[in-house]
Amino acid sequence: MNKPEVSRASLGRLPLYLEVLKKLQLQNQKSVSAPVIARELGLGEVQVRKDLCAVSGAGKPKVGYDTNGLVRTLEEFLGYSHPNTAVIIGAGKLGRALLDYGGFADYGLEIAAAFDKACSKTLVSETGKPIYPISIFDGYCQSHPVNIAIITVPCDAAQEVCDAVVKNRIKAIWSFAGTRLKVPEDVTVQYENLALSLAYLNKQIL
Amino acid sequence: MNKPEVSRASLGRLPLYLEVLKKLQLQNQKSVSAPVIARELGLGEVQVRKDLCAVSGAGKPKVGYDTNGLVRTLEEFLGYSHPNTAVIIGAGKLGRALLDYGGFADYGLEIAAAFDKACSKTLVSETGKPIYPISIFDGYCQSHPVNIAIITVPCDAAQEVCDAVVKNRIKAIWSFAGTRLKVPEDVTVQYENLALSLAYLNKQIL
Repeated sequence: MNKPEVSRASLGRLPLYLEVLKKLQLQNQKSVSAPVIARELGLGEVQVRKDLCAVSGAGKPKVGYDTNGLVRTLEEFLGYSHPNTAVIIGAGKLGRALLDYGGFADYGLEIAAAFDKACSKTLVSETGKPIYPISIFDGYCQSHPVNIAIITVPCDAAQEVCDAVVKNRIKAIWSFAGTRLKVPEDVTVQYENLALSLAYLNKQIL
Repeated sequence: MNKPEVSRASLGRLPLYLEVLKKLQLQNQKSVSAPVIARELGLGEVQVRKDLCAVSGAGKPKVGYDTNGLVRTLEEFLGYSHPNTAVIIGAGKLGRALLDYGGFADYGLEIAAAFDKACSKTLVSETGKPIYPISIFDGYCQSHPVNIAIITVPCDAAQEVCDAVVKNRIKAIWSFAGTRLKVPEDVTVQYENLALSLAYLNKQIL
């Protein structure tokens, strides 16, 4: 398993670089320097150089980066050529908000479907994505590639859902349920605690 | 403005400590040691000591912490005695999910109401909180204390909403809109990028 080589903050800037580079591509600019990208985005040169270096190596002195090459490298790094697929378990308000959110594609991710215990037949979300009864989850996982499970069920249902995810050999879980999950060693869990984010802001202004 | 003295991770553990301490209070335990708290929560002793030290100072050697005193200190630190109030602007799925989420109270925060452009009359959320037309936002802010604004509108509406927030002298913004906001220097903005959280998990499993 490769650990990420870039920090979370750095990863967050990569789609911005890509956007700038694609604009330059349209303007037929064959090469681009870190200062140009930095100016375009209001960032520091050193930061841009550091971010790009982690992904693609350094630019050439006096020339900079090959625009087309850097676009390909960033797209590859962000997984555009082989997007990973996630499913959501728990189609409450938060689950549905995530299901219909368009921003995941910027990071080579697709949320394919949601599952819910309260669903007795397949529903369709606002953006046209399926919401299935949880009873077909196992069958779905057997016939579709699923890389990530997003758990948005209440605390007391989270472990049961987690066990179903693990049984279906999904190795990555993004959990919004406010409880620690028991998983085998080869499964990665990332916990999202929205209350904590707000609490942290609260502490900053006190 | 005081910057937070504890890290985000540490802040996240404080409500857990409080829970353990309150249980010990009920059992009439006058004092408690870091190893006991650590064992109770499956954490390391050093971490518990460090977290508590930042908030309340060190425990007494061989005695530990005064249980009642530590409960009071933690409650004070987490703002239970004077909860801050937040409002949500943008009552879409995400806005409503946050409005009805119960976990903010653990951190001395209350989400009092939501506002939405599409609302022509006051609605009530699932947990009984008001969703007002945005037209009464200024009036609401004049008659209610609002410490934090949570922005959950689409990108292209975010700056306009932000300007209204700033005009109403709210000094802290938690933004889910995927765009940088222009604010005066004395306003703190915390950006939440859910796509980025998922992207980071994705990178960890690639």
